[in-house]
Amino acid sequence: MFTLDPRLQQDSLPIGDFPLCRLLLSNDSNYPWFILVPRREDISEIFQLGVADQQQLWQESTLLAQRLKDAFDADKMNVAALGNVVKQLHVHVIVRKHEDAAWPAPIWGKQPATPYSAEQVAAIRERLRLVLAEDFTFLEG
Amino acid sequence: MFTLDPRLQQDSLPIGDFPLCRLLLSNDSNYPWFILVPRREDISEIFQLGVADQQQLWQESTLLAQRLKDAFDADKMNVAALGNVVKQLHVHVIVRKHEDAAWPAPIWGKQPATPYSAEQVAAIRERLRLVLAEDFTFLEG
Repeated sequence: MFTLDPRLQQDSLPIGDFPLCRLLLSNDSNYPWFILVPRREDISEIFQLGVADQQQLWQESTLLAQRLKDAFDADKMNVAALGNVVKQLHVHVIVRKHEDAAWPAPIWGKQPATPYSAEQVAAIRERLRLVLAEDFTFLEG
Repeated sequence: MFTLDPRLQQDSLPIGDFPLCRLLLSNDSNYPWFILVPRREDISEIFQLGVADQQQLWQESTLLAQRLKDAFDADKMNVAALGNVVKQLHVHVIVRKHEDAAWPAPIWGKQPATPYSAEQVAAIRERLRLVLAEDFTFLEG
């Protein structure tokens, strides 16, 4: 059974589910920073997924990056599977802007996380509802 | 016509070609750090590639990560498309080890690059020859 890594659970807010991945919002208002987690057990590298799951992961991450770029007016999307600390396979999909707190550096380790207010999360959820329509199930927020 | 970004050209060594991507070795001996660059023009985001190219990119990056993990005995593979500085689409595929210079942080901005000696590059090329067989063309080193 799929269980979200405790560290991911602590540092993020669940948004909803693609066919393969749980979509999380990293609880750091410095950046619109999303995380895709395939709902599979004991996977830490992309190539450990079955071939069909790999294709699905790439489709979901690419679709998400494209939709977020429009929805959040990104200057650049950053897509990364690192996992040095949290072993459970997860893919960061991050909206980057020229004026954000870390630009042009990668975001990790640059700024202390600034948690969202409930209103901010509701606004992001609302924005996502406009761009993630088919093949996505929103969780109760 | 495909032309490699001057910054990528300056900071890396060309290794060879997959069907879609040029494979580069980042000239930083702190990590076995490879870069895939789709040989296409004017692409900065994965979703700007055609669908067939997207699939090919993911296949090449996943195959490469799998082969490098074995060849270099990685503790974790890091795969990332960032591109905040170099606009030309490129995917980092990095061998991470628990004892490397940045672990567990992402590698970017952690250590000044330490260029390889000619012998070190030859050794890496040789190691790659053992694991990248079909569907890969080595460039003259």
